[in-house]
Amino acid sequence: MLQNPPAVPGMREDEIDTPALVIDLDAFEFNLDTMAAKLAPTGVKLRAHAKTHKSPIIAKLQMARGAIGNCVQKVAEAEVLAWGGIPDILVSNEVVGAAKLARLCALSRIAAVAVCADDGGQVAAIEAAAADAGIRMTVLVEIDVGAGRCGVQPGPDAVALAGRIAASKHLIFGGLQAYHGSAQHKRTPAERGVLIGNAVEASRRTVEQLRQQGLACPIVGGAGTGTFEIESHSGVYTEMQAGSYVFMDADYARNLDETGAPVSTFRHALFVLSSVMSQAQTGVAVLDAGHKAVAIDSGFPTVWQRPGIVYTGASDEHGKLQYGSETAAPKVGEKLRLIPGHCDPTVDRFDWYVGVRNGRVECLWPVAARGGMS
Amino acid sequence: MLQNPPAVPGMREDEIDTPALVIDLDAFEFNLDTMAAKLAPTGVKLRAHAKTHKSPIIAKLQMARGAIGNCVQKVAEAEVLAWGGIPDILVSNEVVGAAKLARLCALSRIAAVAVCADDGGQVAAIEAAAADAGIRMTVLVEIDVGAGRCGVQPGPDAVALAGRIAASKHLIFGGLQAYHGSAQHKRTPAERGVLIGNAVEASRRTVEQLRQQGLACPIVGGAGTGTFEIESHSGVYTEMQAGSYVFMDADYARNLDETGAPVSTFRHALFVLSSVMSQAQTGVAVLDAGHKAVAIDSGFPTVWQRPGIVYTGASDEHGKLQYGSETAAPKVGEKLRLIPGHCDPTVDRFDWYVGVRNGRVECLWPVAARGGMS
Repeated sequence: MLQNPPAVPGMREDEIDTPALVIDLDAFEFNLDTMAAKLAPTGVKLRAHAKTHKSPIIAKLQMARGAIGNCVQKVAEAEVLAWGGIPDILVSNEVVGAAKLARLCALSRIAAVAVCADDGGQVAAIEAAAADAGIRMTVLVEIDVGAGRCGVQPGPDAVALAGRIAASKHLIFGGLQAYHGSAQHKRTPAERGVLIGNAVEASRRTVEQLRQQGLACPIVGGAGTGTFEIESHSGVYTEMQAGSYVFMDADYARNLDETGAPVSTFRHALFVLSSVMSQAQTGVAVLDAGHKAVAIDSGFPTVWQRPGIVYTGASDEHGKLQYGSETAAPKVGEKLRLIPGHCDPTVDRFDWYVGVRNGRVECLWPVAARGGMS
Repeated sequence: MLQNPPAVPGMREDEIDTPALVIDLDAFEFNLDTMAAKLAPTGVKLRAHAKTHKSPIIAKLQMARGAIGNCVQKVAEAEVLAWGGIPDILVSNEVVGAAKLARLCALSRIAAVAVCADDGGQVAAIEAAAADAGIRMTVLVEIDVGAGRCGVQPGPDAVALAGRIAASKHLIFGGLQAYHGSAQHKRTPAERGVLIGNAVEASRRTVEQLRQQGLACPIVGGAGTGTFEIESHSGVYTEMQAGSYVFMDADYARNLDETGAPVSTFRHALFVLSSVMSQAQTGVAVLDAGHKAVAIDSGFPTVWQRPGIVYTGASDEHGKLQYGSETAAPKVGEKLRLIPGHCDPTVDRFDWYVGVRNGRVECLWPVAARGGMS
């Protein structure tokens, strides 16, 4: 069942029931505006990744600032966005199984929908599903630009698969998916520059080889919050798929800029508000936000504006805080904001966003596309 | 929004949409029966922990085999169980905040409800909430028996807090909460024996000191799937709070018995069914189950009955498999069962259980109390 919202509009932030997923609306809007301003001079489009926010409401706020639509990671997310009125959706991932492909094809009647492939058998399966639905589906070839996960090799393998798509009656070759995930989180600009430099060159080479075969490449998509400033100036990529920039998280805040300082392009806009539920031992307090409320796959959360208090352990429903003798002990009932280590899966733990401005709850938004199913 | 079920009763297992949370019903019922049979001769009661399954349906199956009710970790779980007809519920945890305490007190009109405390201020807050609701609330004192998380120290501190509860007009002193979480996962019987031996002695001493103050201790609760055979024979503990035994997981399967072999008391009954979505590189395949579908806080999942295939990496929506040249490559579209590293948070990722027997879907049950809120 859907959980009750932990707040009511108008409530003070300290009255929100915990744990709760809180958006600082000023910081969030700053992030939306900043990305739009960064991309405007490049001419490259923003196709923001909705796997971060899972919300048609936020997708529309991105489009209001110039985004051409969204990408998603799975059909369940595409459905929620299309049902919520988003007109242009790319599944930046492979979709396997007849049932899921039928759902995706059905969506193409209410939105422009595209999907990726990295396998000839999959191209045949998408063709069969599209034929069955009586539609034409746009398919991008995913190329492995260094992440070593999905994707055919750039160059001839990609050209061969693109040719197969273009030759399929119910498919349209849409271009290349060329995302390098792990590069996003490399800490220094030099490391990120090398990896994305390679990705750009692999993409450029493949686009050229496609052109030689008469295959145009309307979309070359990729990039994330950590590297979009490189891809967007590459002259090759046409669409940026950044997602986390709307919220930021503790992991992205560990990326460094050219001066060695943490990258400060975006602000922390997403928090898990939590309460101290126990403080029975000196130097230790326990929060009501464990790893069922705040994802720990990219490290523990950090405590917002409370230097000296460190989140040191997470069990299902408990977060352990430790602090030194020079720090005032957090009191039972006190509420603290946590900055999640990783925003996307943290969002997925909750049914509701609580939007806050000037210390008051301004809005409640459902995390409409949450959940492990695809 | 609630997600669509990934299956329909009668369907073959290989037709289930993925990723899906699958229960092997034969193994699951074996586990329920085994726990009942293990505890029957001890006279100790089972108050199974519903934080594992989050389901009034499964809670009732436990009660049909002799469980006296359930424990839960938070008010949101207590609500779903009480609304589903479970008559006796202990929140085996502290509950902080007036709103949550009011919800808990309201539940006591439809079920026997109890809660834990480890702080005098919290006892006052529960008294105020109970008075406001016009009910009497049973409160247990949580003692720290070695886990170093919540709980007052055993002995005089616990006795003082119990006295404060007993002296509160709207509270009933219910006994001791004496759970040692980390002991559950110690690998050798000797390690588990030492830690639980200490927990038993701390509990015994505290019960005796309470008796000397005229305070009876109707409940001494604790134990989990890893150690319940020790506590249930201790002569001190009255209620076992095991939860994971219904499903088992890859982490509990690493516990060893006296012979050095993995403990085989319970069977793996919970799986994440997933599909191979990409197999573009030699030796690597990618599943549609990343850490949004299978919790990795206690290690990666293992692959059921597919020796030679190892789950080596999880991102949000992708699970990376690796295998050697002697192993047949998993094919795109092929479905594999994963044994989750940790069952409780894996269940929390999904809206639906799919119950399977003899290769067919027999039932769909909602994961009714899922979610990060409390």
